[in-house]
Amino acid sequence: MKISVEPKLLADTVAWAASVLPNQAGHPILSGIHFEAADGSDAVTISATDNDVSVRATIACNEVAEPGRALLPGRVLNEAVKTLPGRRYVSIAAGERETTFQCGRAEFSLPIMAVKDFPALPEPATTVGSVGAKELAEAVAQVAPATAHHSSTPMYVVVRLAFEGEILTCVGTDSYRIATSRTTWTPARPGPVTAAHAAAVSLRDLLRGFADGEAAIGLNESLLSLTGDGRTATIRLIAIEQYINYQGGMSITFPSWAEADRADLLEAAKRVALFTSKDEAVYLTLTDDAIHIGGGTGQIGKGSDVIDCRFDGDEAMTLKFQPQFLADAISAVHTDRVRIGVLAPHRPCLLASTDEQYRYLCMPLRADS
Amino acid sequence: MKISVEPKLLADTVAWAASVLPNQAGHPILSGIHFEAADGSDAVTISATDNDVSVRATIACNEVAEPGRALLPGRVLNEAVKTLPGRRYVSIAAGERETTFQCGRAEFSLPIMAVKDFPALPEPATTVGSVGAKELAEAVAQVAPATAHHSSTPMYVVVRLAFEGEILTCVGTDSYRIATSRTTWTPARPGPVTAAHAAAVSLRDLLRGFADGEAAIGLNESLLSLTGDGRTATIRLIAIEQYINYQGGMSITFPSWAEADRADLLEAAKRVALFTSKDEAVYLTLTDDAIHIGGGTGQIGKGSDVIDCRFDGDEAMTLKFQPQFLADAISAVHTDRVRIGVLAPHRPCLLASTDEQYRYLCMPLRADS
Repeated sequence: MKISVEPKLLADTVAWAASVLPNQAGHPILSGIHFEAADGSDAVTISATDNDVSVRATIACNEVAEPGRALLPGRVLNEAVKTLPGRRYVSIAAGERETTFQCGRAEFSLPIMAVKDFPALPEPATTVGSVGAKELAEAVAQVAPATAHHSSTPMYVVVRLAFEGEILTCVGTDSYRIATSRTTWTPARPGPVTAAHAAAVSLRDLLRGFADGEAAIGLNESLLSLTGDGRTATIRLIAIEQYINYQGGMSITFPSWAEADRADLLEAAKRVALFTSKDEAVYLTLTDDAIHIGGGTGQIGKGSDVIDCRFDGDEAMTLKFQPQFLADAISAVHTDRVRIGVLAPHRPCLLASTDEQYRYLCMPLRADS
Repeated sequence: MKISVEPKLLADTVAWAASVLPNQAGHPILSGIHFEAADGSDAVTISATDNDVSVRATIACNEVAEPGRALLPGRVLNEAVKTLPGRRYVSIAAGERETTFQCGRAEFSLPIMAVKDFPALPEPATTVGSVGAKELAEAVAQVAPATAHHSSTPMYVVVRLAFEGEILTCVGTDSYRIATSRTTWTPARPGPVTAAHAAAVSLRDLLRGFADGEAAIGLNESLLSLTGDGRTATIRLIAIEQYINYQGGMSITFPSWAEADRADLLEAAKRVALFTSKDEAVYLTLTDDAIHIGGGTGQIGKGSDVIDCRFDGDEAMTLKFQPQFLADAISAVHTDRVRIGVLAPHRPCLLASTDEQYRYLCMPLRADS
């Protein structure tokens, strides 16, 4: 393989590929980033996988002098291409013992890895429709914080993608709360309701590599794939027989709603949380024209704030939250104002964007918490 | 104590005070930040100490309604004041059980600490002259990287401040290299040559709190103090009977000098270092018109680059360096170009700013390294 590419384009693409390299040293071959310049093409495909996720991106070459393949140590490659001067093309030449990168007078070479041992990446699954890649990335990023960091229950570490008509709903839950974010997609053909589950963090990270514009969604029994703008990613699906019944909770009709400025409420929630220890709650009291927010028993300190709001409830109502759960919800809201739907102090409540695209249902803590 | 101050000013001052709070939990009282509003004053003095370093800053109050003192939990105070809205004054009222901060409708209170147990901070030492505070901070920051992170030999963890005439020289060494940075100061009276030694990292950190302008230097047997722009810091001196003879090395006359662009050389040095393992060297070959830089034996990779330079030596010369040592030196150079003075491949060499204010002497590695 002997090619020449633009340094900035190379660095961006390698950075995306490096983002899926496995952290464990268990599979040395998976620490490699794979380059392939096909015969007669003027592009190179750069790919990487950790066996659950695969990413590949095809970028234009200035020149493909010699088609071929190379497998390169991913992490050091990523660090090195970041530092290349952006002014000139980088020539990449794979030899028998090493692959050489040359950019102006800067040069480096990396040892050869056994390209034949690199696993074949899964093909994209059958296309079922298309979606705005950035919109999907944002929806997944909104619901991922509501999943568990670690759990032996698969349902609590995945994002569910539910395809219904032209609505694609992303869902995340750790059993204490459920977040949903709706976006639209264009099904290739009218189909039955279907859903897929993928590891929340991996899905969020691989989606970060997609630019604006439509991407094709592929889906089969075991794989979700996304293809757009020269990039393809696949992620292994996680089988979940019975997902939590979030539609039930999400379809609750809330008789009372409060609405307040998102930035003000988030700032106050974060400040008040500083004064709570791990087991202490922050409380929100919704009144006619203000949300009173407070937390802390005094050992660390106590904090409170008052945020203007509109509340259509009959009487003031106090809700208690685990501090991080409240901040997670408000952080994920993408509109200038946040809406809070309530039933009663110890019944589920809903935090939502004003466009209701994002909804976060959680159970307030008991009064004695 | 009952005062009212500007939130941004409060946050900046508390952040400086918090930067000296000890990391160990050994002395609970030292985790406090001390407030004192003197009778009849319109200012508050905010201070903190870890017993080796003390800092205090006096800031204007909008109002001192009630003079007095308070000792507040430093870390949570620092986090909390950072988040206060900047639009209004903060009212601080020390009560019997807690101290309350109020800023608009945001309010928080922190538990009382035993103010009577807070140690009396050392008074500034006798003034011996004055110095540009930012210039001193920069000189100390330039030489601190040449000191050891950890060493049982006090000489290798301190910065030496050598006062000679109107020259103040900062010196740092870890025995493998010596960095010096010269700045000017104005002695209060002509005096004998004198020197003081203070822990490099602490000295660098406390100097970061000083703004532009002249600061008074105080010095006695055990203490260095700096006072300027409403802030005073003291640092305990470390007794060092016999400092390394750096003047000898620094007065070597180098027959040959190379000069190159600092940013280009630093970028190349950092890239090449990516390919070296811990025990491997990077080499610089100085030729008539270029510095060839390279490193790596191939296991991780190999890197090289060529940087334009002027070199007045008779023949090309190759020097080998521990990669971090080379990057430390070039990073600390504050001029656009860097100068390299050489004698012979295995004799000391000097890296310096073109104004020679900063000089870094080190011994290249042996050829067989």
